[in-house]
Amino acid sequence: MLDALKKQVLEANLALPKYNLVTFTWGNVSGFDKESGLVVIKPSGVPYDEMTVDDLVVVDLDGNVVEGDKKPSSDTPTHLVLYKNFSGIGGVVHTHSPWATSWAQAGTAIPALGTTQADYFYGAIPCTRKMTETEIKGDYERETGNVIVETFRDIDPLAVPSVLVHSHAPFNWGKDPDEAVHNAVVVEEVAKMALRTYQINPNTQDMQQTLLDKHYLRKHGKDAYYGQ
Amino acid sequence: MLDALKKQVLEANLALPKYNLVTFTWGNVSGFDKESGLVVIKPSGVPYDEMTVDDLVVVDLDGNVVEGDKKPSSDTPTHLVLYKNFSGIGGVVHTHSPWATSWAQAGTAIPALGTTQADYFYGAIPCTRKMTETEIKGDYERETGNVIVETFRDIDPLAVPSVLVHSHAPFNWGKDPDEAVHNAVVVEEVAKMALRTYQINPNTQDMQQTLLDKHYLRKHGKDAYYGQ
Amino acid sequence: MLDALKKQVLEANLALPKYNLVTFTWGNVSGFDKESGLVVIKPSGVPYDEMTVDDLVVVDLDGNVVEGDKKPSSDTPTHLVLYKNFSGIGGVVHTHSPWATSWAQAGTAIPALGTTQADYFYGAIPCTRKMTETEIKGDYERETGNVIVETFRDIDPLAVPSVLVHSHAPFNWGKDPDEAVHNAVVVEEVAKMALRTYQINPNTQDMQQTLLDKHYLRKHGKDAYYGQ
Amino acid sequence: MLDALKKQVLEANLALPKYNLVTFTWGNVSGFDKESGLVVIKPSGVPYDEMTVDDLVVVDLDGNVVEGDKKPSSDTPTHLVLYKNFSGIGGVVHTHSPWATSWAQAGTAIPALGTTQADYFYGAIPCTRKMTETEIKGDYERETGNVIVETFRDIDPLAVPSVLVHSHAPFNWGKDPDEAVHNAVVVEEVAKMALRTYQINPNTQDMQQTLLDKHYLRKHGKDAYYGQ
Repeated sequence: MLDALKKQVLEANLALPKYNLVTFTWGNVSGFDKESGLVVIKPSGVPYDEMTVDDLVVVDLDGNVVEGDKKPSSDTPTHLVLYKNFSGIGGVVHTHSPWATSWAQAGTAIPALGTTQADYFYGAIPCTRKMTETEIKGDYERETGNVIVETFRDIDPLAVPSVLVHSHAPFNWGKDPDEAVHNAVVVEEVAKMALRTYQINPNTQDMQQTLLDKHYLRKHGKDAYYGQ
Repeated sequence: MLDALKKQVLEANLALPKYNLVTFTWGNVSGFDKESGLVVIKPSGVPYDEMTVDDLVVVDLDGNVVEGDKKPSSDTPTHLVLYKNFSGIGGVVHTHSPWATSWAQAGTAIPALGTTQADYFYGAIPCTRKMTETEIKGDYERETGNVIVETFRDIDPLAVPSVLVHSHAPFNWGKDPDEAVHNAVVVEEVAKMALRTYQINPNTQDMQQTLLDKHYLRKHGKDAYYGQ
Repeated sequence: MLDALKKQVLEANLALPKYNLVTFTWGNVSGFDKESGLVVIKPSGVPYDEMTVDDLVVVDLDGNVVEGDKKPSSDTPTHLVLYKNFSGIGGVVHTHSPWATSWAQAGTAIPALGTTQADYFYGAIPCTRKMTETEIKGDYERETGNVIVETFRDIDPLAVPSVLVHSHAPFNWGKDPDEAVHNAVVVEEVAKMALRTYQINPNTQDMQQTLLDKHYLRKHGKDAYYGQ
Repeated sequence: MLDALKKQVLEANLALPKYNLVTFTWGNVSGFDKESGLVVIKPSGVPYDEMTVDDLVVVDLDGNVVEGDKKPSSDTPTHLVLYKNFSGIGGVVHTHSPWATSWAQAGTAIPALGTTQADYFYGAIPCTRKMTETEIKGDYERETGNVIVETFRDIDPLAVPSVLVHSHAPFNWGKDPDEAVHNAVVVEEVAKMALRTYQINPNTQDMQQTLLDKHYLRKHGKDAYYGQ
């Protein structure tokens, strides 16, 4: 069942330690199969170096386990809210990668300061508001998804495929699990460079809109001319 | 004698360089056997890549060597004070891991700024007061343990399993040597992220108590639902 | 055709991940054959670990593809402007190496603060002005080359073989592709050290001109005495 | 000739890249044979991964080459001044390790802020004054040695076995080449932690003298009790 997707999800999970995005089991990747409406996700608390395809869990969009012996990641409800609300995404990645997590803890969006970010993100990477007492004490992981969706009320999630959850850490997505991991790596790089940029010059301004347009659009959309 | 514990203590010591927590021999791990009241600890000044089970030293809680040809770690008296005072711990780890040591040198507790810390520590990671002249000139390593115990007068050491010793470095503990190393890794990660968080936003506030409760308690205690 | 140069260009491209200068495909190296007036350059968007000599593209100085099945790097026009204007260079390297890119995002030249920089660069590593709307919307990659050339109006590009493009990242060059990569590594090191130097002492002054002369000239020019 | 010392010097040179102390050939180690009064030193500009015992150069204390086909390190005269003036040292290491070099560029001594430093250095690691025009234009490398010696007028070089040369980088020494490399590693660690300590708490004070005494003296001198 969903063998190709499971393979992608396993590889994407194993890519997290490879790219130094996780310590211990602090991260998870899922993939979405549009046709069946099912999600393949990492099991909760299983170390990456022991994980096999058989550990992965298949759930429907309401969170019911369809296949698998293990409990799915405790963050599963957050992933499901994203799949339901962000049309066109096929992979979600959550990490506590240290640079991006520092911005999340600071409650600050990562501004677009240069072309590295513009090549992947059409603007700043937003940070959610703090969650309310009611949200935290309620269906916490689902509400985490809801506050992300609220943050993207006026932002296209396909053009800005990452978010910082306030006092928590980044969530990233993409057309498939591999692209979602790719975006998670980019967020970590630009998070690192943005802090250092301000340390070099505290008065650094956001990059020009024209330059942002140029770099984003030479890699995305109908007029893209980067790559083969 | 205590073969299983010795194996755990050796593996935990070897995990220190693996997790980049030590330079040269700047760290040590011990394990406590509750039944016999004995402690297995690293020998003093022996490089990790040459260490075998036979180098480990067994001492009683008064510091008498019960087995082993080598001198135990010079920090042994500190470990013993912790085992005597912190009921329920089975492993102690001391390192000079650079981020946590920087906080110790600054004499500053690591505040709880996000869920990474809340997943393991039920609040800030405290820093001891400076030791007095008399303590330093006296039975120094035992007094180091005493000042740690004093710091936890109003803190549950099982819920906050690490401390920064002022002008020195972190000590960490856990239910066994492996968990103590795990906590030492977490301290280094949150120490790194906390400084960067303040550099991004000097006005960052501590995380909400509700969020701290939620994350700590979903992984610890009777209502935990993380993991398998 | 140009087999020796292709080998150099391939090796120089593969050196970028080896020296931690690139994430994914964020960098490219070219080499110039003075006799034929042709340039060998990395193909666009091809991962380093899959790249072979056959993927490399040969173009003339007007950008016409002379050999190769793949599209050349989208930054090719920038490389060509540098070869046309900076007499004596035989290799160009572009990366988004994180420390140098942070300085580029800050719009700030890397000052000469110590002998590490003086051993390779005869002064500060300049940053271009921001590009204009017209330049960005026009022939962008060629204009990137033009703004670099403008920046070196009063600087000898052989004595200062790197530049930061504002809001973008560094370009580096040298007598051949290997030396250009070498300079890219040095820029990353001095970019890192310069920020830290100011963090230690915000009032740090540029190094003495006499010391800059001494170190640069003991490794370059007719009186050099470093090396075998 | 001096086969045992050559082996030590080669191993110590190869340890520099292993401990991430050097980029390219930016470092050198020598060893001193007290009996013969001869020094074995790294050749100038030879990459570490190609270096063999046969590349090493033997010089006398006046800098005359006694054995070896290659030119000795251009920093040889600095090493010789140290051997002549610092009685009891048997190894010298020069690197441009990035954290220590940042302190050198800032012209600032590394203060003693914690026990990591106190375990190896009996106080702050000093920075030389700037060298004069005359010194730089004269016998530069020998004058570099002289300004180091001047800096230790009131400091015991055996108790503080490293220095920062202003606008340049660290020199380190020890009873043999291996111990000198060891000290070079420690300097890099404490340089890193000292900057971060001040970033956490800009009002951090130097460590207590009593604590400095305790840690230095438990590892050095007649009352030492660390190690086997």
